[in-house]
Amino acid sequence: MTHHTYVLTVSCPDQSGLIAAITGCIAETGGNILNLAQHTAVELGMFFCRISFAGTDDFTEEKFHGAFDALSKKFSMEWGFFNTERKKRVAVLVSKTSHCLYEILLKHADGELDCDIPVIISNHPNLAHIATSFHIPFFQVDVAKGKLEYEKDLEAILIRYDIDLVVLARYMQVMSEDFCERWGNKVINIHHGFLPAFKGAKPYHQAWQKGVKIIGATGHFATADLDQGPIIFQDVIRVADTRSVDEFIRMGKDVERRVLVEAVRRYLAHSIFLYQGRTFVIE
Amino acid sequence: MTHHTYVLTVSCPDQSGLIAAITGCIAETGGNILNLAQHTAVELGMFFCRISFAGTDDFTEEKFHGAFDALSKKFSMEWGFFNTERKKRVAVLVSKTSHCLYEILLKHADGELDCDIPVIISNHPNLAHIATSFHIPFFQVDVAKGKLEYEKDLEAILIRYDIDLVVLARYMQVMSEDFCERWGNKVINIHHGFLPAFKGAKPYHQAWQKGVKIIGATGHFATADLDQGPIIFQDVIRVADTRSVDEFIRMGKDVERRVLVEAVRRYLAHSIFLYQGRTFVIE
Amino acid sequence: MTHHTYVLTVSCPDQSGLIAAITGCIAETGGNILNLAQHTAVELGMFFCRISFAGTDDFTEEKFHGAFDALSKKFSMEWGFFNTERKKRVAVLVSKTSHCLYEILLKHADGELDCDIPVIISNHPNLAHIATSFHIPFFQVDVAKGKLEYEKDLEAILIRYDIDLVVLARYMQVMSEDFCERWGNKVINIHHGFLPAFKGAKPYHQAWQKGVKIIGATGHFATADLDQGPIIFQDVIRVADTRSVDEFIRMGKDVERRVLVEAVRRYLAHSIFLYQGRTFVIE
Amino acid sequence: MTHHTYVLTVSCPDQSGLIAAITGCIAETGGNILNLAQHTAVELGMFFCRISFAGTDDFTEEKFHGAFDALSKKFSMEWGFFNTERKKRVAVLVSKTSHCLYEILLKHADGELDCDIPVIISNHPNLAHIATSFHIPFFQVDVAKGKLEYEKDLEAILIRYDIDLVVLARYMQVMSEDFCERWGNKVINIHHGFLPAFKGAKPYHQAWQKGVKIIGATGHFATADLDQGPIIFQDVIRVADTRSVDEFIRMGKDVERRVLVEAVRRYLAHSIFLYQGRTFVIE
Repeated sequence: MTHHTYVLTVSCPDQSGLIAAITGCIAETGGNILNLAQHTAVELGMFFCRISFAGTDDFTEEKFHGAFDALSKKFSMEWGFFNTERKKRVAVLVSKTSHCLYEILLKHADGELDCDIPVIISNHPNLAHIATSFHIPFFQVDVAKGKLEYEKDLEAILIRYDIDLVVLARYMQVMSEDFCERWGNKVINIHHGFLPAFKGAKPYHQAWQKGVKIIGATGHFATADLDQGPIIFQDVIRVADTRSVDEFIRMGKDVERRVLVEAVRRYLAHSIFLYQGRTFVIE
Repeated sequence: MTHHTYVLTVSCPDQSGLIAAITGCIAETGGNILNLAQHTAVELGMFFCRISFAGTDDFTEEKFHGAFDALSKKFSMEWGFFNTERKKRVAVLVSKTSHCLYEILLKHADGELDCDIPVIISNHPNLAHIATSFHIPFFQVDVAKGKLEYEKDLEAILIRYDIDLVVLARYMQVMSEDFCERWGNKVINIHHGFLPAFKGAKPYHQAWQKGVKIIGATGHFATADLDQGPIIFQDVIRVADTRSVDEFIRMGKDVERRVLVEAVRRYLAHSIFLYQGRTFVIE
Repeated sequence: MTHHTYVLTVSCPDQSGLIAAITGCIAETGGNILNLAQHTAVELGMFFCRISFAGTDDFTEEKFHGAFDALSKKFSMEWGFFNTERKKRVAVLVSKTSHCLYEILLKHADGELDCDIPVIISNHPNLAHIATSFHIPFFQVDVAKGKLEYEKDLEAILIRYDIDLVVLARYMQVMSEDFCERWGNKVINIHHGFLPAFKGAKPYHQAWQKGVKIIGATGHFATADLDQGPIIFQDVIRVADTRSVDEFIRMGKDVERRVLVEAVRRYLAHSIFLYQGRTFVIE
Repeated sequence: MTHHTYVLTVSCPDQSGLIAAITGCIAETGGNILNLAQHTAVELGMFFCRISFAGTDDFTEEKFHGAFDALSKKFSMEWGFFNTERKKRVAVLVSKTSHCLYEILLKHADGELDCDIPVIISNHPNLAHIATSFHIPFFQVDVAKGKLEYEKDLEAILIRYDIDLVVLARYMQVMSEDFCERWGNKVINIHHGFLPAFKGAKPYHQAWQKGVKIIGATGHFATADLDQGPIIFQDVIRVADTRSVDEFIRMGKDVERRVLVEAVRRYLAHSIFLYQGRTFVIE
């Protein structure tokens, strides 16, 4: 008999006995804990917990569901329960720049991103050859139609491919409020600036003009309020004042691709908790 | 009634149900878990766990001791149990260089090192004025006596002040094998090199001659085998090839003092597990 | 005969033959170049250069002045010329927090800040004992008088001590527009946020609420427009989402003190060029 | 008339008037300096200088050669003179691991590596498809022949393609002493450890067993003395003690590919000076 591995995520108001109750429930239903990470945000009175565990012979998903559902009501928990075998399905959206797309595809090919990537979508034909060389279907959407029309086409593809997560890998289109609402917290964007500074267009130019000494990139959930969504991961790089804007752009690419992959990795691992407009990434 | 806060550390061979058993025992004896960090070193089949919890009205240390002792035998656990109110007593040993001593005293004064520092010991008179300005007794030991004799003097002071941890803050004397054995894993040293490279004397000179591009420092448990003890914390800094050895030394000082304080902080938090000659720092 | 060491700084519109002309003038007047750093900001068509050189027996400051003055007119250069023996006189302004003050005094005592520190000024009595232990006069100014009156007192002290540079080491008072104008580019402030994000009060609280993953500090010239002055140096530190605001504050202190000292060091080395509202630090 | 851009590199014993003499010679022969970087290694009494300049209408390579040759004799200079239009020809050698090869090809395709890559050589067939997709000839050499025989084949290819630089992109074969001698300082290797620690095989395993807290990679010139050649570039990454060896390997890949590209970039920019077994990289 195969033993599956599961991830359980729990968030709720902080209270006594939470960990004992949760770990007790897992033990009683036949689960064997592999890893537990937990954080109490004292400022907010909130408890966040991520547990991975293996089912033993006694374990069934139904039994656990029943038992944990009862527990969750007692403690007012929000919870998620994931069989790690059911891989998330990820669509990558791109425009003309290739470095973030390549990074995702190479990491995926190396077994470092635990998901399926059934489709790549773009508003330009430029990167089609990369999709081809990785044997992934490539769709070009026509943004000239107007945002509403083209987003309909886009969503039709996402639905047809049963997509769980949309990754904007330097995709140069802003999503409508409606789209963001429907796909809330299922769209990850990479911004080529160290948010909350340098929102909007040409962040490297802004950074150069301001004379900052460190530049960065930000992986965040896309929201209708541009470049304002909850931050998932960030990284930075020191830049000498002898560097030009073009060198900022070149050096920034390495940060962008790394940050985007790390943000997606945290999403796939169910490590991201959202509360009051920010994330708590518990690893 | 005051509720004390405790830290429990557990290490044992990995096996099913450990977390549920441990957290269950805490809950049953009236403890309320504040934070749990755990790691299973799959390579070694070992489980390490650090839990902080508050005692409720029902909780007594005796009751917990009894209950956990029984549990620990069942699972072959090594464990530690600490009342956070009983502060560790730390002796700082120095020679002529002040930056590490200052760092420890300033961090301590700022409430950032949770310990008492009842005594400073040196083989030179140079830093006595610093001890004075922080109102801490300063002892000068006479190494000219020979190592055995002078270590006797040293230990007499450590014992008189009921010392739990000895911090070698750029103390330029090697401890004897006997001393290291008696004070095993209770002596933390700062080495001004990124171990295991650049052991021994003049690590910055070695680094410059080798032309490395990054230098560092290492906080580690002192052992008789010089600069070979288990590593607790490390940090590094990039150095341009236009830097001289003197600049390496200057820049390295900032790394050394930071690394030493971080190593001591982890010790005081009971976050360090030792196994097979290396540490597992679980935070 | 003693040979003095000089620093020459030059900024001008970029044009052919600048370096040959400058280095030629130094050679002809009996100077021996020790170090030359130069940058052409192609975006702005500007040339910045910093040269340190030793005078030989033939060299006199007057001769060089005359020769370089003629050259500078030909190329429309702005230039500075400094005898490194004439140390800059630095006043440190503080409020209640000690870590930045300590850092400056300790680095100065270690010979790592090439300046004199003849006076410490505060709007609170709290840190007077530190000034005492480093044998530096301490003045307490009375801000309750109103900004204009108290700034008069402050400037009287700065003038009495012949101050070249004012360092705001977590000094919790905003300077008036007039003061900033009079002391333009001679006042360095440390802001405990990674500018341009998190201006104004409580930057660590802002950062925590926003959920950023990296926090930082910024050393900059003080201007009337609060936290908007040209940036000199910045550094950052990664923060886990399990960290509280208080831990941000604690961890940030190490970044603040390092950044402030690095900013001051660059000022003292004449490495900072100002142009169009930003700095070019040429090292 | 087209104006070419040149790089001049000079190393010689330190002496008075070097920069004025060099920049004067460039100016007199009709060169216009774009960038000058210089370092005097006081410890060794050596002067290193890298200048890029544009030729004006008056400039000819022959004239400059003649003039600088005379100068170089006077000052006992070793010098190099490069027309930036004549791109270096780089061969990439690989085995089974793709991340370093991909990085070089992607950076090259993005215009970030200023060279030609006319050939990829491997001792395994595994990565041939990558060469194909980038339209670069791929040769498989047969190491089973014995080192001497197979190195002959290898060199025949290198010579046929007029190769200037050999990049070992995780190439799992040690070169013979003869080969290293013949190709001295023209072979760059990436070692997946932070040299000089963790030489030889399985550096990540060594690092894990030692319990180091930071791992790294090193780009260096290949010498017969394995993993001992002059270091060109290094970078590191912090690793938690909760990471397995496999995670070290995964995380290390990102460091390796970045380090290798940065090492190659410095070579192509003529920024590397070799002296007494170490490099001075002057940027």
